[in-house]
Amino acid sequence: MYTEPTTFSAEAYFASQPPPPTLQHDIERVREFAKRQKQEGRKVVLVTSGGTTVPLELNVVRFLDNFSAGTRGATSAEYFLKAGYAVIFMHRQFSLQPFSRHYSHSTNPFLDFLDIEPSKDGNTPVISVTPSKRSDLLEVLTMYKDVHKAGTLHTLTFVTVDDYLWLLRAVSQELSVLGRNAMFYLAAAVSDFFLPRQRMSEHKIQSGKGRLSIEMDQVPKILKPLVDEWTKDGYIVSFKLETDDNLLLPKAKAALKRYGHQVVIGNDLHRRKYEVVFVSPKSPSSKTTTDQSDDEFEEYWLRIPIPDTSGNVSPHQVKEIEEDIVAELLKRHSAWIDQAKTTS
Amino acid sequence: MYTEPTTFSAEAYFASQPPPPTLQHDIERVREFAKRQKQEGRKVVLVTSGGTTVPLELNVVRFLDNFSAGTRGATSAEYFLKAGYAVIFMHRQFSLQPFSRHYSHSTNPFLDFLDIEPSKDGNTPVISVTPSKRSDLLEVLTMYKDVHKAGTLHTLTFVTVDDYLWLLRAVSQELSVLGRNAMFYLAAAVSDFFLPRQRMSEHKIQSGKGRLSIEMDQVPKILKPLVDEWTKDGYIVSFKLETDDNLLLPKAKAALKRYGHQVVIGNDLHRRKYEVVFVSPKSPSSKTTTDQSDDEFEEYWLRIPIPDTSGNVSPHQVKEIEEDIVAELLKRHSAWIDQAKTTS
Repeated sequence: MYTEPTTFSAEAYFASQPPPPTLQHDIERVREFAKRQKQEGRKVVLVTSGGTTVPLELNVVRFLDNFSAGTRGATSAEYFLKAGYAVIFMHRQFSLQPFSRHYSHSTNPFLDFLDIEPSKDGNTPVISVTPSKRSDLLEVLTMYKDVHKAGTLHTLTFVTVDDYLWLLRAVSQELSVLGRNAMFYLAAAVSDFFLPRQRMSEHKIQSGKGRLSIEMDQVPKILKPLVDEWTKDGYIVSFKLETDDNLLLPKAKAALKRYGHQVVIGNDLHRRKYEVVFVSPKSPSSKTTTDQSDDEFEEYWLRIPIPDTSGNVSPHQVKEIEEDIVAELLKRHSAWIDQAKTTS
Repeated sequence: MYTEPTTFSAEAYFASQPPPPTLQHDIERVREFAKRQKQEGRKVVLVTSGGTTVPLELNVVRFLDNFSAGTRGATSAEYFLKAGYAVIFMHRQFSLQPFSRHYSHSTNPFLDFLDIEPSKDGNTPVISVTPSKRSDLLEVLTMYKDVHKAGTLHTLTFVTVDDYLWLLRAVSQELSVLGRNAMFYLAAAVSDFFLPRQRMSEHKIQSGKGRLSIEMDQVPKILKPLVDEWTKDGYIVSFKLETDDNLLLPKAKAALKRYGHQVVIGNDLHRRKYEVVFVSPKSPSSKTTTDQSDDEFEEYWLRIPIPDTSGNVSPHQVKEIEEDIVAELLKRHSAWIDQAKTTS
């Protein structure tokens, strides 16, 4: 008989919730990818991106979701690739992806910048790119093709929070072979709550029977085993999104105290595109502990001018804050790698 | 003081839940569109598509959602346009859209079929379409441009179930000027439940405080006032999606009895791409009533062969069930229009 835990530890979670059917296949691809990048001497970053769902039914029609188009993750992945990192892009199905993100169907639909030119010789007409769009597209397309040729981008897809948790554990274990050369950039908006499979209804919940009551359990704090067990040497960046400013710094510091990882990037829902704060222990070598006082953390604010949203500016002329976030992390990651060399 | 109704009638709903800020602007565009289509003698179909969200917070981070990529709606809209209808495509933000749906970023990313040809004269390289993709793209692009030129597609966007309900009411009222020449093809997966604004928390719900309990109210049955008040002459097609086969026909018939509209298209979650059932009153002139017996309805099953998913077939060679659904509805809509001429 299944007896439900009162709260789920990571261990209890994985013992009771089933893995996604494609897990083994995904693990093998990641293993090959990590091995090749190690041989070729590249640093590797795992970028997680997009929201996770919490299905309410086994034959899922309804689910709880977290707001995220995947902009932060997709944009950052591009800058990591530009900087020479190999990227495992683990994203929510249908969320934005590096490169194609520039051509969302809603804001910049690609059909709008293709022209049909009547053929000169009476044969089939020719499709061409509208002149004003050519240089932007050429830049994106060139980078896209270079990355594919170099084999430095590996994409993984998740939908539910369960998919996400299983994949994160597996990928972090595989990346441990890279030691300090692996970075974890955990930008996905992961649900704090889930509905254990044992409590899901089989079929679509019927309406017409009054109110709907849902009771969800807390998702285990996955950063703890990630830091302590799965990837002891990885450089770990987590994100904290809040809508209440007063909570941002206290919650970022609480996360560092609790999990002992390297940096929390805090962002406010409404200002996240032009302001973030890096919160980290003052001395990166000192292990954070739960009894650490708040003045042992440093805050580094990163801001860019609020972008012109008049629509007159080409998307490629707009500064993206992810460019600066990634640049700052490259420095910190290098220092983290060097530090190990000094002490060993 | 706000006193919450025990159950929400449509009237109580609109009296207590705020309209989306863009509603007035959207209404004016729809009014112009309907007027022009009427002048030009076109039939108009409102296609709703995609799922609706139910935000849990005013500064929304978490929401309940309904599974729907928007395939049914986007595909059907294309066939209505091909048949000469003007289409109001009212869809969930980021769900699939007519034409661009053929080039999803996940399954058929457009960057993959663009080539960079080195320039012959030493200038900028030229972007061209991969030869094997040209004819499919030319077909889609030609239709896309024709529709834009003719001005027969008007797109509206919703996110929440609240946006959806306000928009549906407004659009149906505007389309009433078209009388029987308006069709309503309500393919969106609309939430049966919502959280009244008055009960939402202002900020992101915090974790770390045990289980999450959500209690939601029933969304008012909007088909009732749609049929009885907002658009008395429109031809109304609603959809019923179930995961339990045994519920499909009873629920479709119950909906017709309750709302008295023209047809319910029933589909099973797992077979919806190759099997649907049209359920309608046997005599289209007879008004359905709640005391109608089940044998006064007719069922018309529409099936296509289960498609080859080996991936070797061009998307344009695969038969889409929406082609047949739309063809069947065109006949029924014409009969509905003619019937009014005979009796008047």
